Amino acid sequence: MNIKLDLQFDGTDFHGWQIQPDNPTVQGVLKDVWHKVTGEDTTPEGCGRTDAGVHAMGYVANVHTDTTIPTDRLPYALNTFLPNSIVCTNAEVVPDDFSASRSAVKKTYRYTIDNSVFPDVFRSRYAWHYKYPLDIDKMRQAADGFLGTHDFIGFARSGFTVKTTIRTIYAIKIEKNGNIITIDVTGNGFLYNMVRIMAGTLVFAGSGKIDPLAIHDIIKSKDRSRGGITAPPEGLCLKEVFYTDE
Amino acid sequence: MNIKLDLQFDGTDFHGWQIQPDNPTVQGVLKDVWHKVTGEDTTPEGCGRTDAGVHAMGYVANVHTDTTIPTDRLPYALNTFLPNSIVCTNAEVVPDDFSASRSAVKKTYRYTIDNSVFPDVFRSRYAWHYKYPLDIDKMRQAADGFLGTHDFIGFARSGFTVKTTIRTIYAIKIEKNGNIITIDVTGNGFLYNMVRIMAGTLVFAGSGKIDPLAIHDIIKSKDRSRGGITAPPEGLCLKEVFYTDE
Repeated sequence: MNIKLDLQFDGTDFHGWQIQPDNPTVQGVLKDVWHKVTGEDTTPEGCGRTDAGVHAMGYVANVHTDTTIPTDRLPYALNTFLPNSIVCTNAEVVPDDFSASRSAVKKTYRYTIDNSVFPDVFRSRYAWHYKYPLDIDKMRQAADGFLGTHDFIGFARSGFTVKTTIRTIYAIKIEKNGNIITIDVTGNGFLYNMVRIMAGTLVFAGSGKIDPLAIHDIIKSKDRSRGGITAPPEGLCLKEVFYTDE
Repeated sequence: MNIKLDLQFDGTDFHGWQIQPDNPTVQGVLKDVWHKVTGEDTTPEGCGRTDAGVHAMGYVANVHTDTTIPTDRLPYALNTFLPNSIVCTNAEVVPDDFSASRSAVKKTYRYTIDNSVFPDVFRSRYAWHYKYPLDIDKMRQAADGFLGTHDFIGFARSGFTVKTTIRTIYAIKIEKNGNIITIDVTGNGFLYNMVRIMAGTLVFAGSGKIDPLAIHDIIKSKDRSRGGITAPPEGLCLKEVFYTDE
């Protein structure tokens, strides 16, 4: 039996999703809790790596299991042992060939910016405090330059092997609510640090450091130094993973 | 010159306000930052102790100083060196005899409860996750029993010396927004752990463990064991300190 788990986690105290020998990770904690609950020594498969400090509202994992615990009771059983920073919100049986990572067709990440002059201390774990004025219209104009299918090699940190650096961005939605700015980016996949570099580039466009109409040229240049800085991890949250084209 | 500082802090990583030799505290950090900014070795006076893990939206401190930094620039200077978990939102000159603690006439604390079945991971540092059903009407009925002037010795943890254990509660406001319940308690002062014991008692009233009409008797009994548990510190936040009767 193959079970899909919906998870939320506060990534502040984790070194990302993927198991590491000496550091706390979400996958490591989930594997331990799964063992406590079912007695099975199984490693849950995740929908993707996340960096240290990055959060998730809609992370997805799957586990091949022989557990006799009724599937609808699994979240209750897991949450009894999970720390307050990780919660399982749903569990359901999926076809054997379902893979949290390979079956995903698109993902939405949210990047959050606290644009107050003085930071909101209660958001400091969940937002990038950027105190200088940001022009939302310029940020939206710049965002349009990312849409479509491009080679995003200039928007990636090196260090991971991938078959191709071509990705498609379907939508970017930028909203401002008080001093909080959110950037929702939906794409068929993202390179290492790609969303954080896109967020840093949009902030540079909003603060006048980058011409909002130059994004297309910057992508084409494949030159990492022409984009903005890599925005800090605490502002990033995996919002949703899609398994069917809607 | 005597300067009043308005502060907000996320208490998660602090051992409360008051300076301790070997643990990080808000007062300790502020004293260090004040020294960096002004060169003065002064200990800011706070409006009261807070427990480890307790937060503040409206903490007040005061400092006697000879600094030549313009008062309206002080928050900017302090925030440059303060960690993301502490922010100074305002500074103003006050009369020499103003004392953040002794001049306070009333305070409002907010206690926050996450009443979801599965906890909201992004609130786990700022709310008590209590998953069982709570009857808000019963909680409000119980809250009425706290109003007025009483000897609250049965609602205090021992360990601190105070002249009197008589306190006046002016108002308790309980609101529910989705699964989040907030309890705002305003009084002329609070004993050690008093708000957390009141919150635990209101939750016990809301879950049927304590008769909401028995609060007055429980206070009169001066028997700590008749109240609810001491609610955990992460749900507590000092919301506002009042220096004039309004």
